[in-house]
Amino acid sequence: MDYENEYRFDGSDRLHLKNQATSLPSPVPDKDTIKAQLADNITKLADLQARLYAQSTYGVVILLQGMDAAGKDSMIRHVMSGLDPEGTSVVSFKQPTSNELAHDYLWRIESALPRRGSIQIFNRSQYEDVLISRVHPEILLGQHLPGVNTVADVNDDLFNQRYHDIAHYEEYLNHNGFIMLKFFLHYSRDEQKRRFEKRIEVPEKNWKFSAADIKERAFWDDYQRAYEDMLNHTATKENPWYIVPSDSKWNSRMVVSDILMKRLDALKPEFPTVTDEQKQQLHDILDHLQKDEKS
Amino acid sequence: MDYENEYRFDGSDRLHLKNQATSLPSPVPDKDTIKAQLADNITKLADLQARLYAQSTYGVVILLQGMDAAGKDSMIRHVMSGLDPEGTSVVSFKQPTSNELAHDYLWRIESALPRRGSIQIFNRSQYEDVLISRVHPEILLGQHLPGVNTVADVNDDLFNQRYHDIAHYEEYLNHNGFIMLKFFLHYSRDEQKRRFEKRIEVPEKNWKFSAADIKERAFWDDYQRAYEDMLNHTATKENPWYIVPSDSKWNSRMVVSDILMKRLDALKPEFPTVTDEQKQQLHDILDHLQKDEKS
Repeated sequence: MDYENEYRFDGSDRLHLKNQATSLPSPVPDKDTIKAQLADNITKLADLQARLYAQSTYGVVILLQGMDAAGKDSMIRHVMSGLDPEGTSVVSFKQPTSNELAHDYLWRIESALPRRGSIQIFNRSQYEDVLISRVHPEILLGQHLPGVNTVADVNDDLFNQRYHDIAHYEEYLNHNGFIMLKFFLHYSRDEQKRRFEKRIEVPEKNWKFSAADIKERAFWDDYQRAYEDMLNHTATKENPWYIVPSDSKWNSRMVVSDILMKRLDALKPEFPTVTDEQKQQLHDILDHLQKDEKS
Repeated sequence: MDYENEYRFDGSDRLHLKNQATSLPSPVPDKDTIKAQLADNITKLADLQARLYAQSTYGVVILLQGMDAAGKDSMIRHVMSGLDPEGTSVVSFKQPTSNELAHDYLWRIESALPRRGSIQIFNRSQYEDVLISRVHPEILLGQHLPGVNTVADVNDDLFNQRYHDIAHYEEYLNHNGFIMLKFFLHYSRDEQKRRFEKRIEVPEKNWKFSAADIKERAFWDDYQRAYEDMLNHTATKENPWYIVPSDSKWNSRMVVSDILMKRLDALKPEFPTVTDEQKQQLHDILDHLQKDEKS
């Protein structure tokens, strides 16, 4: 199955999140097959990364969004741990600090961008600024935004403006060789319940659970609406979203690794070629080294 | 004379740089009058800055562009030295470092933006990326930009794209409370000659002169064309350029300080108001302090 094609959403039609699959269509391959496929994809990703790094033209952001417990952290652990850490790092965007709030909301995003040739993983992203604040508009009060004085000022206009600005920002990055691969780990409310239960029942998982998670779960439908609107406004041909069925973590890892492979491959990363003159130089140096050895 | 209105260019008509004045219309006030006016403006600017700082809503960038020896450094020294250094700093954008080149060209700009309530002075700016490289397109080769392999790839499309992206970036900043006040210190080729001669003749000014300046002077007309095109594409109603006549440094300082005053005043920076409840609290604390004193 061509997952890249299947789960890409480029904004050309209207997306209804409730019609989007949260699990793969049957027959789903068995877990061993999926793990083998994932391992194979990771090997190929490591090769692509080596070329990307040597070429130093494109900087790649792998951007993960999803509801609490959608599997973002374990996605990073399982899929990205096969990559060379010299060219990969992870940044988690949490509640903004006072220093971050004293700047525009893309300030912390821009400062976390990868160098050319590197891969940066975004655990949450600029999209938090059109998700949490959409569900809890009062968050934007007291942030000293011009024109935002009451909850009524946090309206559709404000979010439409942000969608537009974010989409344009990603276009600008494209022009300069920076690509954002955007994944929404889409899963069901029932599966969230199961994962929260597990976090409470299994002592080693307790630390992952906080009472605030249950509070946010009560806003599930509001978040789905905020996600749907955001996806519809910020998916473009050049910077599509991938709506990854994520009720099964292993399946979603395989799908994401598969899409990453296709997208990195499409950048045609190649080791820089060496001219005949450079080859001759390298040969001369080799001769020199070998003579040195003998003397 | 309303300098803000006179020298504002908002892109609504076509600008021809050779028709733009490089000196004030006569009768020019005498130097003492101008210095007194400048001192007066600086006092008012300091008051506006204090309010801006207390309000912490707007972050202001004062952006200076101009040919070599146009008076950017001395503008900063004479006009901005009246401001509170706690809320003001200066950043000079020089030839990009290898770390800067490994990122998109707005990366170093974004990281230098002021906090809300502060003023950041840009000595040169993002506009260097559509000026120097326009005159010397070979600079962009070897920067690993996708699609830029030969000098022919550094074409109008590339610069039009950059104009568009920069203009949009400034709009995005506006939406979030950050304002760029953009000044082009416009002066004549003859006046540059005089200033270079002085830099050579006066020993204390020698360090300001480099042989590279003469090399660049040979490209004067190319730079004027690059400036003209850039100004026409990036001046907007919200983010206009000010084309400041700069053959006389004192005159240009007065003009810039005058425009700054008008623009900062238009932001209506005010000390945050204290509610009746807060006033009562403050009074109670005062009572408490005074009793403490007596005991």
